[in-house]
Amino acid sequence: MTVPMHPVLVAGAWRPARSPAGSFRASNPATGEAIDEMYPVSGFPEIEEAIRAGRAAAAEMAALSPDAIASFLDAYAGGIEACLAELVRTAHLETGLAEEPRLRTVELPRTVFQLRQAAAAVRDRSWCRATIDTRADIRSKFGPLGGPVVVFGPNNFPFAYNSIAGTDFASALAAGNPVIAKAHPCHPGTTRLFAEVGFTILKASRLPAAALQLLYHMAPEDGLALVAHPDVGASAFTGSRLGGLRLKEAADRAGRPIYLEMSSVNPVFLLPGALRQRGEAIAAETFGSCTLGAGQFCTKPGLIILQGDEAGEALYQKLKRSIVESPPQVLLARTVLDGIRAGLETMVGAGAEIAAGGRSPEGPGFRFQNTLLRVSGGVFLKSPKDLQHEAFGPVSLCVFASSSGQICEIAASLDGNLTASVFSHSGGDDETLYETLAPILRGKCGRLLNDKVPTGVAVTPAMVHGGPYPATGHPGFTAVGFPAAMIRFAALHGYDHVRPHRLPPELRDANPTGRMMRLIDGEWTMK
Amino acid sequence: MTVPMHPVLVAGAWRPARSPAGSFRASNPATGEAIDEMYPVSGFPEIEEAIRAGRAAAAEMAALSPDAIASFLDAYAGGIEACLAELVRTAHLETGLAEEPRLRTVELPRTVFQLRQAAAAVRDRSWCRATIDTRADIRSKFGPLGGPVVVFGPNNFPFAYNSIAGTDFASALAAGNPVIAKAHPCHPGTTRLFAEVGFTILKASRLPAAALQLLYHMAPEDGLALVAHPDVGASAFTGSRLGGLRLKEAADRAGRPIYLEMSSVNPVFLLPGALRQRGEAIAAETFGSCTLGAGQFCTKPGLIILQGDEAGEALYQKLKRSIVESPPQVLLARTVLDGIRAGLETMVGAGAEIAAGGRSPEGPGFRFQNTLLRVSGGVFLKSPKDLQHEAFGPVSLCVFASSSGQICEIAASLDGNLTASVFSHSGGDDETLYETLAPILRGKCGRLLNDKVPTGVAVTPAMVHGGPYPATGHPGFTAVGFPAAMIRFAALHGYDHVRPHRLPPELRDANPTGRMMRLIDGEWTMK
Repeated sequence: MTVPMHPVLVAGAWRPARSPAGSFRASNPATGEAIDEMYPVSGFPEIEEAIRAGRAAAAEMAALSPDAIASFLDAYAGGIEACLAELVRTAHLETGLAEEPRLRTVELPRTVFQLRQAAAAVRDRSWCRATIDTRADIRSKFGPLGGPVVVFGPNNFPFAYNSIAGTDFASALAAGNPVIAKAHPCHPGTTRLFAEVGFTILKASRLPAAALQLLYHMAPEDGLALVAHPDVGASAFTGSRLGGLRLKEAADRAGRPIYLEMSSVNPVFLLPGALRQRGEAIAAETFGSCTLGAGQFCTKPGLIILQGDEAGEALYQKLKRSIVESPPQVLLARTVLDGIRAGLETMVGAGAEIAAGGRSPEGPGFRFQNTLLRVSGGVFLKSPKDLQHEAFGPVSLCVFASSSGQICEIAASLDGNLTASVFSHSGGDDETLYETLAPILRGKCGRLLNDKVPTGVAVTPAMVHGGPYPATGHPGFTAVGFPAAMIRFAALHGYDHVRPHRLPPELRDANPTGRMMRLIDGEWTMK
Repeated sequence: MTVPMHPVLVAGAWRPARSPAGSFRASNPATGEAIDEMYPVSGFPEIEEAIRAGRAAAAEMAALSPDAIASFLDAYAGGIEACLAELVRTAHLETGLAEEPRLRTVELPRTVFQLRQAAAAVRDRSWCRATIDTRADIRSKFGPLGGPVVVFGPNNFPFAYNSIAGTDFASALAAGNPVIAKAHPCHPGTTRLFAEVGFTILKASRLPAAALQLLYHMAPEDGLALVAHPDVGASAFTGSRLGGLRLKEAADRAGRPIYLEMSSVNPVFLLPGALRQRGEAIAAETFGSCTLGAGQFCTKPGLIILQGDEAGEALYQKLKRSIVESPPQVLLARTVLDGIRAGLETMVGAGAEIAAGGRSPEGPGFRFQNTLLRVSGGVFLKSPKDLQHEAFGPVSLCVFASSSGQICEIAASLDGNLTASVFSHSGGDDETLYETLAPILRGKCGRLLNDKVPTGVAVTPAMVHGGPYPATGHPGFTAVGFPAAMIRFAALHGYDHVRPHRLPPELRDANPTGRMMRLIDGEWTMK
């Protein structure tokens, strides 16, 4: 019996994929067995059709009131909540992530919160940074890009980063752009559910029917052609460094903006005074952060840097014990398993020792032991590239520095990261070291933390989920937090001597909401 | 008799170039003769030394009060004014640009105004967009990049875009970064004067001595290695598309930010009603904009699009007459002359006819006739790439559309530009066409103008001097206007649970100036 192939959402309709380049099924990572739902791999003609429809939708959306977009985002959030049970069940099946608390109580609420935050930012309008010089009659604001935004969702957040419901989707749509979602092939069913909910609500809205489009899969070379297409406004990708760099090269060559979140080892520095003061608590917190969700977070601590003194050794022993005693976890996919093995090989090849875990248990599905490695600071500094290899999964490397000076040398040898954390004595015991270390780390990360593990990315306007290359492609942006995340998907639009009735409402003399923040003649004002 | 080679400004001192890769002299474009001053071509070891010193200076600057940077910028502006006569004389000699009004009354005042605007933005601090979530204790702001910014100055603005005094320099320094200036080899003497003034003032300031460095010239491959260097914070380039694209590729591959202003034909649409109403005045204004400064502006109208009706033909005849009657002008350099010839060849090859000018007059120096070409809309649409080739200089192409529909087709065929202008009837006669045309142009330009020529870039916070690729490398930024231009040279810095005394002053609970604008717990406030 053949399983029917799910339709794609292209050009304003669910329809069978036209001449698909192939088909695929997701797997249940807990069993390793294929799930009985078939999805198409879209060919380039279909991708081009989506781009054309997205381009036309972009023109329609430019003429819409922001309130239409905000209403859609709010209604979509409500629709997702109404579909909660099915989303959680499907995502658990496809990803192996725990239904409770992860999917139901943490990630789904975060996802609808993001959509509502985006809606609020759209209504508020201050995000567009309207700037007016009344004397010269020159005005500017951020506006949409004029073409669809392509969103490539990652495997590890089936809700909060989903290509058709997550933070990139919400940011791109809130900035006024249609979205072409490219599902992660590990959870096509979850993505389909979102798209079904979203498209039903879309049809009842004032947005064009091609404001949301969904393709499940495509050949890598077609992905490259997609991000380089002149009619695409921008692209966003969250995933592996290898995939990200290939897309970046294609987009860069064509002069198309692309935002990437590619890799991060999120170094955690445990300073000597902190370990003497509260080593037990720090060990427990670090263990939790390293192994939460099988370590499959972009902010998982991959590197733990500490001094090899008594307190440092005690922390390490405690952390190691916790890791040894913890059960293997289900991974998202076979590719994660393969990535961990390759990462361990690289790190061991560069001189790290596996202290705990390191194996895939017998039995069905994709599982790996929680794993801890150790290496001396001296060996780390000989191969800093290989030893800061991101092993995406429950793998962390303890680096034992011989001195405060070596701690700073290790910091200086790091690549760009999403986060860097420093635990220090609550009095002044570590202050001198902190004062040397923090400026080094400031240039190496997007978010600098004190006395706190990096996992758990709060959705707040102040969040920075970004950082220097190669964590992302540009250090000036964040993927989380409204309104800041929207700026990625906006163009700066200048209006010089444009007649008042032709101006966008945000740039006319009268404040369109009565309380939007604008910079007028050098003064910030809500009038 | 050998002329001594001028020293470079590297690592905090004027000193002889070490093992220079060569030497060069500028030419007086009015005579074509070499000027009797010799400058070094720096080799890569010297470039690397500048990067190292810039990196160390970046660390020092991160610890400085913004007021130190603002005071330097203000003092530098004053120092430039005190050196006005020598700057004007030298720039005139090296560029052929008129001393009056261009250099003395327009460009030099603009340059010092920019430095003072940058200083005011630094003192105000609102530019850094401080965002605070007091409940989650998460905070963010823009901060410096952690490495020097490399500025490549263009040939056409020896003052206002000078690599060590112009808008990119001011933006980069104001954002807290040291600058490595790469002089344009057409006006090394002008650049040297700025650097001498700036460095004298720098030594009396609290800024590190390597906050300003100057190299006069380098081999193209060394320029590529410079922008790709991991210790460089970002680069800015204003110049040719060919040079810009090469630098872009090198920087992109290395994941280093680069901001480029590469090319623009600045289409001017003259709608039928406007020409019937005030064709004479529009012709005069267009002529002025096309030929001002020998057309050597990035915002020169290279394309004039109009309908081939009676009023359109009358405008064309008037414009042509003005161009025929105007004398040839001195160009900046022989390369400009070569570029014009190549551009004309491309356009004529694609079917345009030379209607006026088109030749280089006999005699010394680098001169070219003001030049007008014409082509039909139909021919234009057959070769839109070749016919929107930027001929940098006093060259413009009139495109005669057969209908309103064809005007819009021509607009849709355009690449990204810095500007697009539309002249329309002051009543409603052109409104229907405007309503179709403007949304097309909105996606094609940074600054959209009504009833105004694009030359003359006002320095105001509302200015957008940017635009979609290939006018620039990213549509979200502006190179002119403070504080917006500074954002290019900033990284987004997050602080999560960082102890209050370790936070930058802009992110502490108390407002550091008592009036800096911040977004605190969702509310814009100056408290």
